[in-house]
Formats: sequence, structure tokens, C-alpha cells
Amino acid sequence: MSTLADLDALVVVLVRPRNPLNIGAAARAMSNFGAHRLRLINPYAVAFREARSAVGASSILKNAEEFKTIAEAIADCALVVGTTAVRNRALQLPLKRLHQPTGDAIRKRLQTGRVALLFGSEKIGLTNEDFSHCHWLLSIPTQETHVSMNLGQAVAVCLYELARGKPEKPARTAAELATAGDAEQITGGVLEALRLSGYIKPGTEAMFEKKARRLIRRLNLEAYDAKLLLGMVRQVVWKLRQEEK
Amino acid sequence: MSTLADLDALVVVLVRPRNPLNIGAAARAMSNFGAHRLRLINPYAVAFREARSAVGASSILKNAEEFKTIAEAIADCALVVGTTAVRNRALQLPLKRLHQPTGDAIRKRLQTGRVALLFGSEKIGLTNEDFSHCHWLLSIPTQETHVSMNLGQAVAVCLYELARGKPEKPARTAAELATAGDAEQITGGVLEALRLSGYIKPGTEAMFEKKARRLIRRLNLEAYDAKLLLGMVRQVVWKLRQEEK
Repeated sequence: MSTLADLDALVVVLVRPRNPLNIGAAARAMSNFGAHRLRLINPYAVAFREARSAVGASSILKNAEEFKTIAEAIADCALVVGTTAVRNRALQLPLKRLHQPTGDAIRKRLQTGRVALLFGSEKIGLTNEDFSHCHWLLSIPTQETHVSMNLGQAVAVCLYELARGKPEKPARTAAELATAGDAEQITGGVLEALRLSGYIKPGTEAMFEKKARRLIRRLNLEAYDAKLLLGMVRQVVWKLRQEEK
Repeated sequence: MSTLADLDALVVVLVRPRNPLNIGAAARAMSNFGAHRLRLINPYAVAFREARSAVGASSILKNAEEFKTIAEAIADCALVVGTTAVRNRALQLPLKRLHQPTGDAIRKRLQTGRVALLFGSEKIGLTNEDFSHCHWLLSIPTQETHVSMNLGQAVAVCLYELARGKPEKPARTAAELATAGDAEQITGGVLEALRLSGYIKPGTEAMFEKKARRLIRRLNLEAYDAKLLLGMVRQVVWKLRQEEK
């Protein structure tokens, strides 16, 4: 059913991550969206060890590669994209906003070579030195007042955007709708219940008939619901009639 | 520079969250994307306390509201959307995939009333009982083999999708929709009528409660119709009770 893009050629690079939970969260988002190449640059050793040994640590985490420098980690990548929350750095790099067109552009590049997506450390993000390895900068559109995202969440949002395929055609087979005849039967039952319960006063029948009919029409009932509703209304009418006797 | 949609009317509801880090992460994503109404249903008390007292806990977290039931938490919402990783549940609810068109649909509804977005607990997600309060189900497109997302990441991805995009013109004066509270009152009345009329047999109450609630939800009542319908149902119930005496 899902039509996720193939992220086999995507390399997720965490630069100096500090928190084992974030490393684990990044790996989890990768497994959700079908990316599996995780590389870490100078991770805080304890954090990496903890993340790897966590219960349920994925194969992504176990196969994660460790590098000393960005240059080594991205050596096999044809496009390097650095994520950043800061928008006005004086960097001479194309700054892209994460949205469908950027996703399209990256997906296109994934078809011809590996693409590295760099995420900086929790505290300071990527440095100017890190950015010097990048072709593009990528920023997730957020509130101006709260630009800094949690690392694991930033990875999830980026991968969600990259994994989304082309907009799908709405395949859903629409539910069968109730016929006008069904609706009229329900209307008749409702009117009868309203009469028997005293909601409709003598002389106002015509007005309420129109009102009830319009109400039932506006519901745009599906066939299944119409049948259900008719059964309910009929039982109530039956009971009200019993009492009348 | 950013053109985030206005998420003021969005209510993020965490149902029985267990982990303070996830509660904090949900709140952080909300601040990133401009949502600020956080509600919790029966959170694990220690987790909620910890999340609230964490260093840097946001005003979102401090202002988070706690409820005992979903019905209370969503009473002021006109659209209730339950998130789920499971795609093939036999639920008679529209199942939407998170992508631009779904975002458009929800943004449109945010212009005319509050929209609740429900996230289930880390372990089991939302239950069928929880789903009976929902108008739509929403699923994030993920790998078939790894459908279950981390709670904080799922919130981030959903809010990213909702916040994206150009704000629509708030042109059309759409009809005001009934709130979940209105719908719940009607559901209660209908159930009472069905009980009094003998449609519901003893022992089947719980099943019919869900069935009736879903039926009323699917009607997507406008506020005017809800009022009309409630008056009708109440009169019928009153009459049935009279007869009982």
C-alpha cells in the first residue's frame, strides 16, 4: 500500500552526537522510513555504546559506522546536505527549505548516487567547518521563535519528507451511499417518532416534514449507516406505538 | 520568511503517555511548529510530573491540561483525528494517509473549529474504544516492516505536515460544525432511546455504545443540525420514559 521512495542511497550522518537516546531515535526513524546507512562522526563514546547496547537496538545501529572526520564519512557521497536551524548564516551555499520540491530534488539525486544528510550535535549543530563540506543547506520550516528541533525529531521529519513518494492518486473506493428511497424511509420513521413523542404539534406537520427530510438529506448517509439508522428508528417507533395502545 | 499555517486551533492529545521524555518531546515539537494546546488523558503521574519539572520545560508543558476521559478532552473539538500505525483495522472510519492533501483537509477544518489530534500510549497506541471518539484515522506512511514510530517523532512529523504550506485564504464562511461535545450528547440520547425501546439488549450495551458513537461521528453534523437533532432525540427519550412509568 505504501509507496515510499527508495532511501537505500541515503547516508544519515550524525556529527558529534552526545545523547544515546537521540542516536537511538535517529536509527528508529531511519527504520520507519527505510534508510539504513548510519554514520557517526566522533560520537561521545559512552553515548554510542549505550545506544548500541540498548534493548531492541536495530541492525541499523549495530551496523552504524564511526568516522573521525566528515571528509572520510562523506567520501562516497555525490551530494552532501547539511541541516541547520539557523537561517541567516553568511554562508555561500544554497539554502533549501524542507518541503516537497526539495524532497523531489534530493530523491532525484538519490537515483544516481549517494546523498549524505548531516545533522549536528544537540548543543551547537553544525559548525562553519562542517558546512564547508556541504553542497546545500537544509532547514526545516519552524516557528521563528523556536527554531531548534530535537535531533531525533529533526531526523524523523527530514526522512518523512524524503520518503514520501509522488502524491498518490486517491484510490479509495468510496463507500456506497444511501439511496433517496432509504433516506425517505428514515425520514418517515423519524417523523412518526416525533409525532408519537409529541415533538410535532398538530398543524405543524408539513413544516416538520420538510425540516426532517432536509436534515436526513444533509447527513449524506452511507448505505450501511442508513440501514443501521432505519433499524434504530423503527424499533423506537414500534415501542412508542406499543405504549400508545 | 516562514509561512507556517496557524495551528492555534489544534489540540494535541496524548492518551495515557508513559514516558516523560516523550511528553517533553511532544511539547517541544509543538513549540517548533506553533501548536500550543496540549492535553493529556490519564498520563502516568510520575511521567507528567517529571516532564513538567524538567529544566527548560516550556509553557506548553506547564499549561498542559489533564483529563480523565477522551470525551472530556475533546468536548470542544469539531474534528477528532486518531493516529494509528495499524492500517488494516476493521474500523468503519475513513483512514487517511499523512501527506499534503490530508494536511490541506485538516488545515481547512482548523479555520472553522478546533481539531484534536490523538496519539496513543507508547506500548499499545489507541484502543478501539479510543477510536470510537474519532472521525478520521491518520497513519504516517512508513515501511511496512517498521510501522511503529516513537511517540515524540510521530508528533513532530504530523505537526510538520500540518504546519507546512502556504496558509490558505480564510475566505469561505463554512457552516459551523458541531463539536464533539454536541455529538456526545446526541449519542447519549440515542443510546437511551435504544435502551428504552428494547433495541439494545442487556449485555450488548458496550458494543452499541461504540456503534452509535461512530454513527453519529460519521454524520459530520453541522452545529445547527446537531441542535435540531438533540431536541428531537430528547423529546423521544422523554416520551419513552413517560411510558415506562
